[in-house]
Amino acid sequence: MGKKVAKANRGIPSKAEAFTEWYPFIVEAAELVDKRYPIKGMDVWRPYGWKTMRLIDGLTHAEMERTDHEEVNFPLLIPEVLLEKENALVARLKRAREEGVDPDELRDEEEEAGFKKEVYWVRHAGENELDVPMFLRPTSETAMYTMFPLWIRSHADLPLKVYQTVNTFRYETKQTRSFIRVREIHFFEAHTAHVDEADATRQIEQDLDIVDRLMHHLCLPVLKAKRPVWDTFPGAWYTIGIDAIMPNGRTLQVASCHHYRDQWAKAFDITYETKEATQAHVHQTTYGMSERLLGAVVGMHGDDSGLIMPPAIAPIQVVVCPLVRKNATVDTVAVSHDVADRLRQAGFRVKVDDRDLHPGQKYYDWEIKGVPLRLEVGPRDVEQGSVFAARRTGGKSPIPMDGLESGVRETLDAIAKELRVRAHAHVDEVVQPLPAWKDGSLETPVEDGRIYELAFDGSDADAERLERATGMGFLGDATEPYPEPRPCHATGEPTTRRVLMSRSY
Amino acid sequence: MGKKVAKANRGIPSKAEAFTEWYPFIVEAAELVDKRYPIKGMDVWRPYGWKTMRLIDGLTHAEMERTDHEEVNFPLLIPEVLLEKENALVARLKRAREEGVDPDELRDEEEEAGFKKEVYWVRHAGENELDVPMFLRPTSETAMYTMFPLWIRSHADLPLKVYQTVNTFRYETKQTRSFIRVREIHFFEAHTAHVDEADATRQIEQDLDIVDRLMHHLCLPVLKAKRPVWDTFPGAWYTIGIDAIMPNGRTLQVASCHHYRDQWAKAFDITYETKEATQAHVHQTTYGMSERLLGAVVGMHGDDSGLIMPPAIAPIQVVVCPLVRKNATVDTVAVSHDVADRLRQAGFRVKVDDRDLHPGQKYYDWEIKGVPLRLEVGPRDVEQGSVFAARRTGGKSPIPMDGLESGVRETLDAIAKELRVRAHAHVDEVVQPLPAWKDGSLETPVEDGRIYELAFDGSDADAERLERATGMGFLGDATEPYPEPRPCHATGEPTTRRVLMSRSY
Repeated sequence: MGKKVAKANRGIPSKAEAFTEWYPFIVEAAELVDKRYPIKGMDVWRPYGWKTMRLIDGLTHAEMERTDHEEVNFPLLIPEVLLEKENALVARLKRAREEGVDPDELRDEEEEAGFKKEVYWVRHAGENELDVPMFLRPTSETAMYTMFPLWIRSHADLPLKVYQTVNTFRYETKQTRSFIRVREIHFFEAHTAHVDEADATRQIEQDLDIVDRLMHHLCLPVLKAKRPVWDTFPGAWYTIGIDAIMPNGRTLQVASCHHYRDQWAKAFDITYETKEATQAHVHQTTYGMSERLLGAVVGMHGDDSGLIMPPAIAPIQVVVCPLVRKNATVDTVAVSHDVADRLRQAGFRVKVDDRDLHPGQKYYDWEIKGVPLRLEVGPRDVEQGSVFAARRTGGKSPIPMDGLESGVRETLDAIAKELRVRAHAHVDEVVQPLPAWKDGSLETPVEDGRIYELAFDGSDADAERLERATGMGFLGDATEPYPEPRPCHATGEPTTRRVLMSRSY
Repeated sequence: MGKKVAKANRGIPSKAEAFTEWYPFIVEAAELVDKRYPIKGMDVWRPYGWKTMRLIDGLTHAEMERTDHEEVNFPLLIPEVLLEKENALVARLKRAREEGVDPDELRDEEEEAGFKKEVYWVRHAGENELDVPMFLRPTSETAMYTMFPLWIRSHADLPLKVYQTVNTFRYETKQTRSFIRVREIHFFEAHTAHVDEADATRQIEQDLDIVDRLMHHLCLPVLKAKRPVWDTFPGAWYTIGIDAIMPNGRTLQVASCHHYRDQWAKAFDITYETKEATQAHVHQTTYGMSERLLGAVVGMHGDDSGLIMPPAIAPIQVVVCPLVRKNATVDTVAVSHDVADRLRQAGFRVKVDDRDLHPGQKYYDWEIKGVPLRLEVGPRDVEQGSVFAARRTGGKSPIPMDGLESGVRETLDAIAKELRVRAHAHVDEVVQPLPAWKDGSLETPVEDGRIYELAFDGSDADAERLERATGMGFLGDATEPYPEPRPCHATGEPTTRRVLMSRSY
């Protein structure tokens, strides 16, 4: 499998100079996916890519179990009538926002929200036209909230916290990119229902804590920002977007949390009996992530030799390469297998590469795939009672066979740490204060590859002016505001609101 | 979650007398799935059901890893043109069979095979009609075999062994039943390619060995039979069906293996360079299983108190119930949590039920869900240094706290063994020799709830006559023939072919 790719990938594009070429090249050369499937934007996950994604899923599932979420699995297909229900809700919320009134005062109207334009339709089965047209889920609010009223009766049933990992679909008309913009999306979604707004807010806080824990494993610094109103998920009270930062300075939303208050509950009639025996609507949240997490890992950590996998999600954490010397008295292949067995016993994911190839060719293959640690086993190493460790992040040193397991653990930890240091240095370099406004324009023009932060408490018109002047979008209010008030970029009034602007995927 | 169901399930139907009512009742009462989703035949997997299914998947995945299969994930949508390719192949094979000629001598014709009638079509996305109509995979031969020619170049790439666990779709017009006949199917499929027919045959042997290992965990005896020609998967050289036996004697195909020879390879142009530098077509196999495995577990092991989960796939293997006595000096709740912690440490899946409910109500809940082992922790048990173990298969005895872990392991093993003994006894009772043929009919009529075996080497017409006389279908040739020849049921000629007949789901 994959001979052709292995031969073809000799000339890896430069990541720094040609990221838009480097990315698709490396995704295929490392055999994460195959893009040659005959539908655009629907890639085949190859074993190495799928294993990586499943390891990321595994971390997510562990977090869900830790925080008392339960895993469910909903049907892929959703009847059209539920989309209409959602559209009516979204249209009403939009009008309420525009007119500055309470959405409860408005009635649903037949109005087209955007969703219909983004879904794949199933209207035929076999030779029949279906009585009830259905669509492929783009996300599962409507499917789930149809069932919630059947599951929630009283306050004792709350909070209800469920999640699923499923395939979702968006009819993308923009250019597709593996993991980043695809038409079939490997998607994680948690949905919760609570007794009141405050409890739902606590859930959002827990979600953001989970994000931090996951990103630590992925060695990915992220920006967390409360999206501006015009970029809030329709149907949400507010949305917090979690963005990774790609090497070209563009932000990539890898996760998002939505606080729905009781807006969906009212549309889907999700009520419960309170302790006081009255009926109340639940307050809801969602937390979503996708295969973009893998796209961010690829983009952030890779280099001109290929991927660099964070140890927590590396399908192969350690590759053991025996060095075979003619006339050697030591069986390095046998020792390599012993080393691998010991490490597997200790819980590491290990592969022995005893192919009859030049070591350089082997190293090249595993560098492209981003295996964090390579152990070379040569006759002299064996004689000296050690193996030679080459870190994918750079640097080589022997690890004594005595204490092999702890030596490997420490080395992998050091690699993860190095990835975090590099990634944070990148973010510190990329995120800069927005130049001041002077004489109708920015004092100095914005630079390519940067993200800007600014104290901001201005109007939507001010925001629009800044977006036009920079060619960038408002990511929103960083969840960590300035510790002390600063003058607003637009009005000069003091504010602690720290707003981020970026070009985003 | 689920209060309503818990209240409603007081009157469980009798399994022996009303299996067709018992089954759907128990599936919902145990909270495996919720059938109230607004599309018929598409159930919502609830946490308990999904966890069970994922544990079954976990066993399958372990077997796949053990046998060097690699996990992939293919797109759900398949372009229509590939279905036409498949249809042409199937139609040609069918004609070749009917005309008794080599299929290679026939050319493809525009002919409609059955598949088009069974798939869901995606012809629209957003407001557009798609240029290329697509369908939801019913299985992934066409999707995968489109990619195989890109992955297979030479004999060094073979065998290629991949698998995936995905959602598949069939437009069912028959009555749907949870797990057994659904429209969205949780499906496992392994696809392999080999240098020649013999190597593909060895793969089928490995598949059947894997089936045995999995069924041991599920405590399910199965029948393995090479399907008659008229029941062979279209496109296969031969099909081996693996059937579980439900309490009503009907067989339920839970898995199947197909030997494709080089028939698909010729249709999809999958060739490789041999060691002799010539080009040859690969030989292929598939091995499929589905959520029907869970349906069989429910049907085979349950009783009038609910499910009985085989320990290997029980989401909760042990439930610990503290008995709270007034004025007791022992904190049984604290001891219960200690017991649970010790067992979790040892790798068991454990839950403490410290709800403030009457013990009888608790026991009832966990019996419905089929938890194999209940540990009761009362003040006297604590004083005597033991816990009281109640097996879901019947029987109670104390387990000393000293050696708790090994006591629980032995008890769970005993429960699994008991399930196997019961299931095998059921099969031995159900499978009977077919009554002899006499004076134009069977000597004694067939009985309800039975499966029949017979020595058979007759013609298709003989088979048809028997099917008509019994109202049953030919399952095919058991993979274990008679050790000694017997006279054929139809012709009287000696044969070791052991043919099975049943009514099937």
